[in-house]
Amino acid sequence: MDSGHTARTITRLRQGSLEAPSQDAIAVEEPLEIRVAGDTIAITMRTPGADDKLAVGFLFAEGIIESLDDIGRVYHCGRPGSKEYGNSIDVTPAPGHSLKVERVSSSRRGTLTTSACGVCGRQSIQDLLERCKSVDPGPQVEASALLEMVDRLSVRQPTFVETGGVHAAGVYHHSGGLLACHEDIGRHNAVDKVVGALVFDSNIAAGGEKGPVVLAVSGRSSFEIVQKAAMARIPIVASVSAASSLAIDLAHKLRITLVGFVRGKGFNIYSHPDRVRE
Amino acid sequence: MDSGHTARTITRLRQGSLEAPSQDAIAVEEPLEIRVAGDTIAITMRTPGADDKLAVGFLFAEGIIESLDDIGRVYHCGRPGSKEYGNSIDVTPAPGHSLKVERVSSSRRGTLTTSACGVCGRQSIQDLLERCKSVDPGPQVEASALLEMVDRLSVRQPTFVETGGVHAAGVYHHSGGLLACHEDIGRHNAVDKVVGALVFDSNIAAGGEKGPVVLAVSGRSSFEIVQKAAMARIPIVASVSAASSLAIDLAHKLRITLVGFVRGKGFNIYSHPDRVRE
Repeated sequence: MDSGHTARTITRLRQGSLEAPSQDAIAVEEPLEIRVAGDTIAITMRTPGADDKLAVGFLFAEGIIESLDDIGRVYHCGRPGSKEYGNSIDVTPAPGHSLKVERVSSSRRGTLTTSACGVCGRQSIQDLLERCKSVDPGPQVEASALLEMVDRLSVRQPTFVETGGVHAAGVYHHSGGLLACHEDIGRHNAVDKVVGALVFDSNIAAGGEKGPVVLAVSGRSSFEIVQKAAMARIPIVASVSAASSLAIDLAHKLRITLVGFVRGKGFNIYSHPDRVRE
Repeated sequence: MDSGHTARTITRLRQGSLEAPSQDAIAVEEPLEIRVAGDTIAITMRTPGADDKLAVGFLFAEGIIESLDDIGRVYHCGRPGSKEYGNSIDVTPAPGHSLKVERVSSSRRGTLTTSACGVCGRQSIQDLLERCKSVDPGPQVEASALLEMVDRLSVRQPTFVETGGVHAAGVYHHSGGLLACHEDIGRHNAVDKVVGALVFDSNIAAGGEKGPVVLAVSGRSSFEIVQKAAMARIPIVASVSAASSLAIDLAHKLRITLVGFVRGKGFNIYSHPDRVRE
C-alpha cells in the first residue's frame, strides 16, 4: 500500500560542478499517532507502512498487550482520503478484554515517542511550525568550504573515534570558523548542545554573515533537525547522510538550504541551492 | 568533566575464532531529565557532558527561552555524589523573567524526548525494567549464521537501496529462517514493526528453539532496542553498529546476548557470549 520512498528535485554537486536539477528518491517521514480505544498513547515519526504492526509491536513492548487475543480492531482513524488519514491508528481491545493503558505510568504517558525524532503529531508539528520563521536570504558559501566543514566534524569526534557509537554536530561561521561542536549518542542532542553553546555565547540569531551560517551533522537530517536550525536562524544544514521527505519540505518552506550525502567531493542539495557557490 | 565513553569487557570474533575477552571503549548512554524551575519538561537519553548546553539548546528550540537574558541558573539537581546526580538538570528563569513553559502545549508536555530513544527518566526506566524478565538460557547459533543474518538485512532493504535513508530490523528463527523484516526511518519503529509482525503471527514468546532467536538491526543498539527484545523474549540482538553502555548493562542483566559491529567476517559480543558457537 504505502511506499517507503517518494521523489524530490535535487541539485547535485559532482566534481566541483553543480548539475542541472534532477529527481531523487527520498525516504518518507510522517508522524503516526498511536491510540488505544481513542486515547493517544504515543506519537512517533515513522515511515508509513505496516502501521498496524508498528502500533501493536509498540504496545507489546510497553506491556500494554500480551498477545493477539488482547486485540480487537487495529485501524487508521479519520476520513479516508484526507491528508490526516493514515497518520493516526487506533487499537481497540478484544471483546471482554481491556488494555492495561495504566501500565504506561503517568510520567510516561505521552512521552512514548520512539523514533529518532521526539516531536510529532500533527498538532504538535503545527505548534512548532508557527514558532519557526523563514530565515533571511543569503549568505552564500562555497561548495568546497561546505565539504570541508562536514569533513572536519569527523576529526572533532573523540568519542566516535574511540567507540564508533556517537553522532556529532558543529556550527560554523561564514568564514569557516567553528563556533561550537559537540558529540552525543543522539543526533538531536548533539544539535541541542551546539545551539545551547551559541545561546551561552550570545551568538545566536545574529543573522546574515555575522551569525552562525552552517549546521553540520554527522547523521541523517530529519524534520526535527531542520526545525532546530530554523529556530537558531542557521540558514544552511549539511549532513553526512540522507534527508527525509518532511525535512526537505520544511526546509523549502523556511528558506533553509538543506544539503545531504556530503561525502568526499560531492553532495546533494535538497532546497534553496542559491546559497551554494561552485 | 564527563567522558563520553567508558569501558566494557567484550569477546571478539576474528577470522572465525572467538578471542579471549578484552576491554573495549563504549559510548555512554544515560537519561537526562530537563526541568524548568523544578517542573520536568523533557527526558532524553544522552551522552553525559555539556548538559547545560543540551538543556538550554533544547529549551531554545522549543521557544521557551529566547536568549541568555532569560536564564538564571542552570544546575544539576540531587545530592552530589549520588547515582542520580548528573542525570537531572534544572533551568531557572533570570530574576524578573518567567519562562514560557506553557508554549509546550499540553499535548507535548512530557513528549519531548528528543534522542534516538524515547523511553527514559530513572523512574520510567525502572518501570520498564520491572516488566522485563530475563530470557531463558540458550539456544546457540553459529557465528557464521549470525554474520549471514545481519548481512541479509541489507538486501532486504528496498527503501534503503533507493534512498540511503532508512533502518531495517529482522527477526530470525533458530534455523536461520526470516520470520519478519521491516524498514523505517526510525530504528525503534523498525523493531516495533517486526515485533508487531510476530504478535500478529502469534509467534512471540514461544521460547527456546521454537520462537524467534535473533533480532538483527541495521543501526546501533541502544537501551530501548534491548528492552524491546527482552519483552519479545528474543535472546540474541545483533547490530551492524555499536552498542551503548546502557544497552550492554541491560543485556547482561536480562541474559541477552548482545552483538555489535557485525560486519564482514567479524563482530563484537558484549554480553553472554555462550550463545555464540564458533
